[in-house]
Amino acid sequence: MSGGGTTAYGRKSFQRSKAHFTDRITADGQDGWPVEAGRYRLVVSRACPWASRAVISRRLLGLEGALSLAIADPIQDDRSWRFTLDPDDRAPVLGIRFLGEAYDRRETDYPGGVSVPAIVDVPSGRLVTNDYQRITLDLATEWTALHREGAPDLYPEARRDEIDAVMADVYEDVNNGVYRAGFATGQDEYEGACARLFRRLELLAQRLAGQRYLVGDQTPGFGDTVDFDHIKRHYYQVHSSINPTGIVPLGPDLPGWLTPHHRQELGGRPFGDGTPPGPVPEAEQVPARGRP
Amino acid sequence: MSGGGTTAYGRKSFQRSKAHFTDRITADGQDGWPVEAGRYRLVVSRACPWASRAVISRRLLGLEGALSLAIADPIQDDRSWRFTLDPDDRAPVLGIRFLGEAYDRRETDYPGGVSVPAIVDVPSGRLVTNDYQRITLDLATEWTALHREGAPDLYPEARRDEIDAVMADVYEDVNNGVYRAGFATGQDEYEGACARLFRRLELLAQRLAGQRYLVGDQTPGFGDTVDFDHIKRHYYQVHSSINPTGIVPLGPDLPGWLTPHHRQELGGRPFGDGTPPGPVPEAEQVPARGRP
Repeated sequence: MSGGGTTAYGRKSFQRSKAHFTDRITADGQDGWPVEAGRYRLVVSRACPWASRAVISRRLLGLEGALSLAIADPIQDDRSWRFTLDPDDRAPVLGIRFLGEAYDRRETDYPGGVSVPAIVDVPSGRLVTNDYQRITLDLATEWTALHREGAPDLYPEARRDEIDAVMADVYEDVNNGVYRAGFATGQDEYEGACARLFRRLELLAQRLAGQRYLVGDQTPGFGDTVDFDHIKRHYYQVHSSINPTGIVPLGPDLPGWLTPHHRQELGGRPFGDGTPPGPVPEAEQVPARGRP
Repeated sequence: MSGGGTTAYGRKSFQRSKAHFTDRITADGQDGWPVEAGRYRLVVSRACPWASRAVISRRLLGLEGALSLAIADPIQDDRSWRFTLDPDDRAPVLGIRFLGEAYDRRETDYPGGVSVPAIVDVPSGRLVTNDYQRITLDLATEWTALHREGAPDLYPEARRDEIDAVMADVYEDVNNGVYRAGFATGQDEYEGACARLFRRLELLAQRLAGQRYLVGDQTPGFGDTVDFDHIKRHYYQVHSSINPTGIVPLGPDLPGWLTPHHRQELGGRPFGDGTPPGPVPEAEQVPARGRP
């Protein structure tokens, strides 16, 4: 499982289950977890696209100082995500070796999978949420008091219906579609998933023909949080039922998003009344090996 | 093994062994196998790049009538190449179910692998040669009496040193290089093979920058003998240690060689004093499913 909820592989088709821990961290603390600077730690893997979304939101909103970050090793073992990139194989601040320990402190013998992104309450060491879809929305709408000056509105009220509709299609056919194709165990299943994925990509390309972003003037923020080394090592070394040699392919030399795209010529105000974020804090920069 | 000599896969790096049966079919019959119309059968798999070279030469030289063709199933079983595409799973003319039977008639208990391309003597049913490099050269130089009118000279005397030198590099770094990369069992081995392959491709691209072909005005002949269905099914379904799901990827929609390349603008006389071949005989046309 790469994150984003528990995923079941095997002889049946790919299924992504809903996140089990769905408490919300909110301004009013309705679930017992009020927004508070320095209290929580966001645990991610840079290999995980679902976690990357949370990392990007945190960065655009300038929440680095308020919500600290733990980065798991892209290679899991049978106890799932682990902190083997850190000194003594132990996450700083949280002091745990496996993300699963925070799950255990929250619910003993929880039988589900351990996934990222996850937010852990630092004082108690307990998992608060692994609800990958909700985390990003709440960073945008509930953590506003801690946003940087000039932070863009990532989920503007007037656009929510449109955003939700577009994202439902993207989620089903693209985000999950690539897993359905990649983890297919039969030819028909694979071809069906590919057909659906590429049909959706064509529809999205049509949508993007005349506008810079999928919805409105929404905000760019992709690139400097991406760690290709982690992404590739995770997918090619962990899933040995698909890639038994564990060999990681070389490339790409230069991802497409670094080449001039001229899409700014389509106009729009990508940060609305806000401003772009500053550079990534040094401690969180992607090492040269994984940088595109 | 896809053909072109016995190949050893496993926990050590990829090795291609020399063909074991190296008798030559020549104009003077020096090895007991004189060139003779209708006597021999060329056994190939359209999945095998080494066999494809023999098929292309045969076609350019107009040897279809003189040297008949047997096409093996792209999916081997543990007895190797078989004729399961044919009625009763038996090769017409040769009457055998496995290419290995022709090997057995030649040498009892031959311990090596069964490879294509192979030429079988129809009257005796015995294998003559599986020397994939020699077969093509001899079609060009020894079978001249049976060439079609206007057949190009595929191995002109004045160019042989240059052809041999270029082909030695292509053979080592490209033809075998893709196998070394694809069948690598370790990361370093894979990366080394890739580096060597792409370094060679760059050198070849430099060579091709100012001239249409790798050597002289040499002859085009690529495309209508290529069966993508066979190629893909072979490599993705046979090599289960690399691709355990056996899923065959979709695509490509349109191979690059069908898009206009404008390379004819570099000039040259691709067929020399000869002419292009006619259309592929109907019985040997690549079925629509495998056609690019």
